[in-house]
Amino acid sequence: MIFSNLNINKDEPIYIQIERHIKQGIKNGELKKDSKLPSTREVSKFLNISRNSVISAYEELESIGVITTKRGIGTFISIESENESYEYNVDFSKRINNYGTTLKKFDIIKSELPYKKGMISFKSISPESHLFNLDDFKRSLLDAWTYEEANLLNYGYAKGYKPLIDYFLDYMRDKRVDTNNKDILVTNGFTEAFDIVISSLTNNGDIILCEEPTHNTALKIMKAYGLKIIQVKMDKEGLDLVSLENALSKYNPKFGYLIPSYNNPTGIVTKTERRKEIYKLFRKYSVPIIEDGFNEELLYSSSPIDPIASLCGTGNGVIYIGSLSKILFPGLRIGWIFADDNLIETLESVKRGRNIHSSFLDQSAFFYYLKSGAFSRYVKNVRKYYRDKYNLVLDMVEKYIPYEYITGEGGLHVFIKLKNNINARTLLELCYKDNVLFMPGDIFYENSNDNVEFHTKTDDNKPITHRKKSLKGYDTFRIGFGRVSDEDIKKGIEIIGKNIRLLDN
Amino acid sequence: MIFSNLNINKDEPIYIQIERHIKQGIKNGELKKDSKLPSTREVSKFLNISRNSVISAYEELESIGVITTKRGIGTFISIESENESYEYNVDFSKRINNYGTTLKKFDIIKSELPYKKGMISFKSISPESHLFNLDDFKRSLLDAWTYEEANLLNYGYAKGYKPLIDYFLDYMRDKRVDTNNKDILVTNGFTEAFDIVISSLTNNGDIILCEEPTHNTALKIMKAYGLKIIQVKMDKEGLDLVSLENALSKYNPKFGYLIPSYNNPTGIVTKTERRKEIYKLFRKYSVPIIEDGFNEELLYSSSPIDPIASLCGTGNGVIYIGSLSKILFPGLRIGWIFADDNLIETLESVKRGRNIHSSFLDQSAFFYYLKSGAFSRYVKNVRKYYRDKYNLVLDMVEKYIPYEYITGEGGLHVFIKLKNNINARTLLELCYKDNVLFMPGDIFYENSNDNVEFHTKTDDNKPITHRKKSLKGYDTFRIGFGRVSDEDIKKGIEIIGKNIRLLDN
Repeated sequence: MIFSNLNINKDEPIYIQIERHIKQGIKNGELKKDSKLPSTREVSKFLNISRNSVISAYEELESIGVITTKRGIGTFISIESENESYEYNVDFSKRINNYGTTLKKFDIIKSELPYKKGMISFKSISPESHLFNLDDFKRSLLDAWTYEEANLLNYGYAKGYKPLIDYFLDYMRDKRVDTNNKDILVTNGFTEAFDIVISSLTNNGDIILCEEPTHNTALKIMKAYGLKIIQVKMDKEGLDLVSLENALSKYNPKFGYLIPSYNNPTGIVTKTERRKEIYKLFRKYSVPIIEDGFNEELLYSSSPIDPIASLCGTGNGVIYIGSLSKILFPGLRIGWIFADDNLIETLESVKRGRNIHSSFLDQSAFFYYLKSGAFSRYVKNVRKYYRDKYNLVLDMVEKYIPYEYITGEGGLHVFIKLKNNINARTLLELCYKDNVLFMPGDIFYENSNDNVEFHTKTDDNKPITHRKKSLKGYDTFRIGFGRVSDEDIKKGIEIIGKNIRLLDN
Repeated sequence: MIFSNLNINKDEPIYIQIERHIKQGIKNGELKKDSKLPSTREVSKFLNISRNSVISAYEELESIGVITTKRGIGTFISIESENESYEYNVDFSKRINNYGTTLKKFDIIKSELPYKKGMISFKSISPESHLFNLDDFKRSLLDAWTYEEANLLNYGYAKGYKPLIDYFLDYMRDKRVDTNNKDILVTNGFTEAFDIVISSLTNNGDIILCEEPTHNTALKIMKAYGLKIIQVKMDKEGLDLVSLENALSKYNPKFGYLIPSYNNPTGIVTKTERRKEIYKLFRKYSVPIIEDGFNEELLYSSSPIDPIASLCGTGNGVIYIGSLSKILFPGLRIGWIFADDNLIETLESVKRGRNIHSSFLDQSAFFYYLKSGAFSRYVKNVRKYYRDKYNLVLDMVEKYIPYEYITGEGGLHVFIKLKNNINARTLLELCYKDNVLFMPGDIFYENSNDNVEFHTKTDDNKPITHRKKSLKGYDTFRIGFGRVSDEDIKKGIEIIGKNIRLLDN
């Protein structure tokens, strides 16, 4: 009896399980073509289930032509179980182009030391999820469903969910940005926004100016498109103006990519006066700016600073990329490009050519969440929570880590440059053995050669392995604390300090 | 009084409205720096609202540094209203590269005649949304939320939602595909899946073989990446084998892109025997196949046909792209790439580099929907519904349209080649005046020159404008009927017939 080895489970409708069982029987040759199936009555009796389940299973299988019922005679398998195969193999590794190879090579999820359960990890700069106000979100999700229903399941618009676009336009106006002749394209977070801008407005070999150090994802994407990256050095107030003007005049770059509100990884906040100077220089050399609004909302104390885009008035020289996901629901991949409306019209076609549109379920739920005021409430709470953690981190660093400098005006991370040329990757290897993880700083610098490794000895002849010592930023690292408990912050930073002393003698 | 021009609405929390009002007051200069605000008591009295709303508004504004409260003295604006701007403008139209320009040029949403309210439109091949089982979906959405909660709001995995990946692997096994050494990457529908494969595995100038005609979105994407497209002609059973072998030997293509299950636009279904011959030819010339599983589930009568991927056994020569969204919830952008597991590992990094991951809310809700059996129930219902519409369309076409041939084995559309060189775009212009829309066939052909227009006269000297007559497929068009009422199908096709007679004399 074909059903003797079928165990019905409770999670799934029974008729589905019967269907699958028969299909598998055909596949593995147990049920040959034209062989007869037991009647629905027999099966229901044998498995002690309702006969209707068996009937619907048989009906379904008949409707797709797998079985045929002959009145008064019985039900028969109507397809072959055999499935000839003619293998052939392709070596795809040889076929992956430079774009694919680069994205894999610089995929830090794969190249960096992985988190293991029980470790203290300062690697992530994501927010703490137990702060999410889940009930508020669930309510917004249900609101979205109630108001939109089938609309969320039909094709949406490449540009995005209209109420959310309008919300983001208001949001820009609140930041005193002129929205005339501007428009918004909703994207799957910052990453897609940046990818769409870069892929549509640059060509292989173009030069892009950016901060040194800068967001590693942006570096990765620019490399994948074969762009030349010139990093301009920063002081604690932001881009160094002299170096910036030199670079602008020397390289005639296609764009500048800036994270003025909250540079990743340094956490440096560029204040209004410096922003104006930077903006004026880019304008002087008529180089458009791609402004990354990263973490604007997380400024703890200082009064709000208008984005560079606000300096542009009715001009279009600044392309602003916004995203709230770094402080709110990283899993909701929602960001936006704010730019010249004709440009947005083209980028809209690019978005459509890539994935038609972003999830309307996400966009709509997110809209109702923002509209309800839950976001403001949320930000208000977490600001206090993260400010306390931030101060704790500063205290611990003071206590345990001999640094050349530390930067970061709040947010969810700080950035440290070590004293005495200590190599952060060597340090990381030691800390990893002690179950402590952080993000080595070199990934935020444009480094052409990146697998250098060599060995030296300390004065008292201890061997040290230096990895990537020749790399820019080799003696820097980022500490993300958003998801680390106070206790672990204390333990973790003390361990890092201990290992620094091991290397530093 | 700054609040005299504020009208409280009911949709939004009051404190948000107060906050916004004050921010706007600052922006438009009404509230200068250091000017004093009315006390919370005064405001609540004046607006006749709870004082707590005013207090939270003031607290929020203070926490972001917009206002300062001096104990016993009052609350004051602490930022400048002025916002110097230094315009500058960039002509982005000159900066958009070939990729962006191509995607815009071939964006049919922008280039084709738009639907207007009240029209009878055969343009869409989307499913009818009143058939969606919304309650089932809502239940699945709530299941997803209940089981996953915060997980859906945290970063997910680039590869996709694990339970959904496993579901799709089972789905492939049910189609008798060998899943050893294979893996799945979840994407935002077919479009992103195809875009990721093409962008990672081809280089400018590479040659791709595909069916003639074929899916216009695929053509658009390949053009955007500068690929050479060779279309191989089809007969009613699928690709013509002689032409295929000629093309394979002559062009040494990088890939073949095939829609064997349900060619778009012709609706031709390639049966098992022909699939084997096609597959063997590609294997003979070791050209990998990208198989588009488009609408497999919508075969009405004929018994199920295994995908070409099933012929490959443990080999990796076929990359299969699946998507259920064409028959189920087009708005849920969910599709998948099934391929060699090492290849998937690279494509996973590409996906991460583009948008980190697809919506986990969509993926999870979709998984619980599929798991509940709602999908099988749905397909069972709609098959009958669409089969009836399909037969109605065939009857009407027989009655009104003089065609050279008509193709389409069910699904949601049929494809027609007109008699006597009638230009489908000229026909469309006439029908458009009668409020009837359909999709002209030339967009499914590789056509280099595409703005030809010339004029001729009919025998009795009526002038006719021929647009794109020189284009391949100029005398073909697609009729999508999924969303058209029976009555409109009758009316619409009769109108098309009437206009054909006008042109055909």
